[in-house]
Amino acid sequence: MENFTFYSPTFFAFGKDTEEQAGSLIKRFGGTKALIHYGGSSARKSGLLDRITASLEKAGVPYELLGGVQPNPRSGLVYRGIELCRKEKIDFVLAVGGGSVIDSAKAIAAGTVYDGDFWDFYTGKRIEEALPVGTVLTIAAAGSEGSPDSVITKEEGMFKRGASGDAIRPKFSILNPALTQTLPPYQTAAGITDIMAHLYERYLTNSKEVEVTDRLIEALLLTMIHEGPRVIENPNNYEARANIMWAGMMAHNNSCGVGRSQDWNSHNIEHELSALYDCAHGAGLAVTLPAVFTYVMNHDVMRFAKAAVRVWGCQMDFDHPEVTALEGIEKLRQFFISIGMPRNFAELGAEEEDIPTLVRALCWGDGRQGSISGFVTLDESDCEKIYRLML
Amino acid sequence: MENFTFYSPTFFAFGKDTEEQAGSLIKRFGGTKALIHYGGSSARKSGLLDRITASLEKAGVPYELLGGVQPNPRSGLVYRGIELCRKEKIDFVLAVGGGSVIDSAKAIAAGTVYDGDFWDFYTGKRIEEALPVGTVLTIAAAGSEGSPDSVITKEEGMFKRGASGDAIRPKFSILNPALTQTLPPYQTAAGITDIMAHLYERYLTNSKEVEVTDRLIEALLLTMIHEGPRVIENPNNYEARANIMWAGMMAHNNSCGVGRSQDWNSHNIEHELSALYDCAHGAGLAVTLPAVFTYVMNHDVMRFAKAAVRVWGCQMDFDHPEVTALEGIEKLRQFFISIGMPRNFAELGAEEEDIPTLVRALCWGDGRQGSISGFVTLDESDCEKIYRLML
Repeated sequence: MENFTFYSPTFFAFGKDTEEQAGSLIKRFGGTKALIHYGGSSARKSGLLDRITASLEKAGVPYELLGGVQPNPRSGLVYRGIELCRKEKIDFVLAVGGGSVIDSAKAIAAGTVYDGDFWDFYTGKRIEEALPVGTVLTIAAAGSEGSPDSVITKEEGMFKRGASGDAIRPKFSILNPALTQTLPPYQTAAGITDIMAHLYERYLTNSKEVEVTDRLIEALLLTMIHEGPRVIENPNNYEARANIMWAGMMAHNNSCGVGRSQDWNSHNIEHELSALYDCAHGAGLAVTLPAVFTYVMNHDVMRFAKAAVRVWGCQMDFDHPEVTALEGIEKLRQFFISIGMPRNFAELGAEEEDIPTLVRALCWGDGRQGSISGFVTLDESDCEKIYRLML
Repeated sequence: MENFTFYSPTFFAFGKDTEEQAGSLIKRFGGTKALIHYGGSSARKSGLLDRITASLEKAGVPYELLGGVQPNPRSGLVYRGIELCRKEKIDFVLAVGGGSVIDSAKAIAAGTVYDGDFWDFYTGKRIEEALPVGTVLTIAAAGSEGSPDSVITKEEGMFKRGASGDAIRPKFSILNPALTQTLPPYQTAAGITDIMAHLYERYLTNSKEVEVTDRLIEALLLTMIHEGPRVIENPNNYEARANIMWAGMMAHNNSCGVGRSQDWNSHNIEHELSALYDCAHGAGLAVTLPAVFTYVMNHDVMRFAKAAVRVWGCQMDFDHPEVTALEGIEKLRQFFISIGMPRNFAELGAEEEDIPTLVRALCWGDGRQGSISGFVTLDESDCEKIYRLML
């Protein structure tokens, strides 16, 4: 196990009706005037936004509203948010939504107190300071409610890039599984896929002797395999939603990823897909993960065999571990298909002819030098082959 | 799953040589003058205390030293610590040691800023305020490095009782697995047992639909079963020590215990043993757990069968689940024996004739009304039978 630091100071309020605590939690964490940042009309139509503004009013916290965050959130709205926060002297950003809204809120929070262009943080500068952020989560997926990360897409060139820093870790996150019951099945499944990808990206490590984190990752994957189909079958299954929601946070606050190298190649390969086609991140991952794993499997066959046996219940083929490894990858692929995720480029709405464009953006975008690295280093030729495995 | 809050804001620095960060971490978390609280002579002889005082000197943090914490830490030393902190205007308490030292430090931190008797916190009053606490952990066991809890024994009557409050959660904890390599095997094994008890106490729940936390608990138990024997066989196995150390923290910061009722009857039953005989808490638990589980098993046979199958690899007897449940308990008992823990009263140094005294202290001590409650409610007669199962 490698040396590490771990810090996850977010306060979580989990369960039914917890959104009513939004106002008092903002006050508890020092906010006196809030930006309520949200996405489309569903937060308003469902009455959620009304319940939250009522909670802030009850707690005596004035607020401004800024909606309109899109999936794969854009830099344009971030600039507007920063301007609004400065003009209205806002000192707390409350995100009401999923990962996109939270990531946009984090970008606004960091950008408001920064003299330069907030995009600097998305091209390598570490975030050291930000307005405090709180969240009311409406989809279990990105894990942004407990993470120090944010991913934003820049309109010029449609570059999708990430930033990080403890300063943008939410001070509090409100997790009410009931709020996710109204999600369409496709979005629910994309969220499940994203959570499983966060686990697999941590599982694919070159570090040795990491039994405790291996076991924790396997535990959360087993949970997703058990709960995922239940919630697809019955969207109103509160208990399944609750198990998925806590697993989604634990999958990405890094408690199960410490002390080990991680991968994140699959996320990077997918980011180019959702940047170009504006597809759901999770849907892109469902197509990406099996392709990447098939391509890199031989780098550490026993690790993939371990996942196959411990997570997917495969029988170990001791004479041919690669057979078991492949079987585990195939089970993962079939699982994604079973919950309604796309299986290939065509179902995702991606085009073979764009592969050179995808590869160029992936391997040369934003300062990269012709390759991406993680579990294995992948150059342009590797990345092209991986995209072709998705056809 | 039940509604819950979760808050674990401790900063963890994990790995080799991390104790050198003690001084800078105290400063980072606002300390200007520290009490260094420790146990016996081993911290001094090993050179650990010198490295830590050097780190504080380098960071420009003056300090006072207070050693002498015993296993099952006593109120007498806590009173001395409180007096010292007030007199010397100390604003940070650094614990260098295991759970006993950390718990004593927490009591001092809470008592220093409290007008009344600190023992009030150990008879039901919640801790709302305390000096900041940091830790340098030297044994993986109690989980106190990431918990809001403290257990102290009052000399008058030898009552062993717990207190709790977010204010005594460590601001930082330094976890260097190498520091645990010098521990005698018996103490190492007692620590392993304590960690497994923290997991089982959370596993025994009456809450339904808690797959995610069930799986996480099982993952950590599987880790202990894998790493425990390796470290008993070779005390210098850094990697096994590292896996156990992180598992020990995760076992007790409650990330795997949220949203569910928990047990803690076994801990309470054991506390009377270590209070009366001053035995190692873990050694007492090794004798207590199998007895309690055998006694309460029929309250939920399938839960014990699940642990047997998922954690201990037993084959499920679908016609007789109670056979599988018992087999899992027997495997747990044999595991404790295999790592050198006592199996009964005699090996623990406990006496049959003391059972009435133990039962009285357990069921009527400190405000209890003739029973203890958790997974099941146990009255005096139940507790007597359980102690007799340990003979």
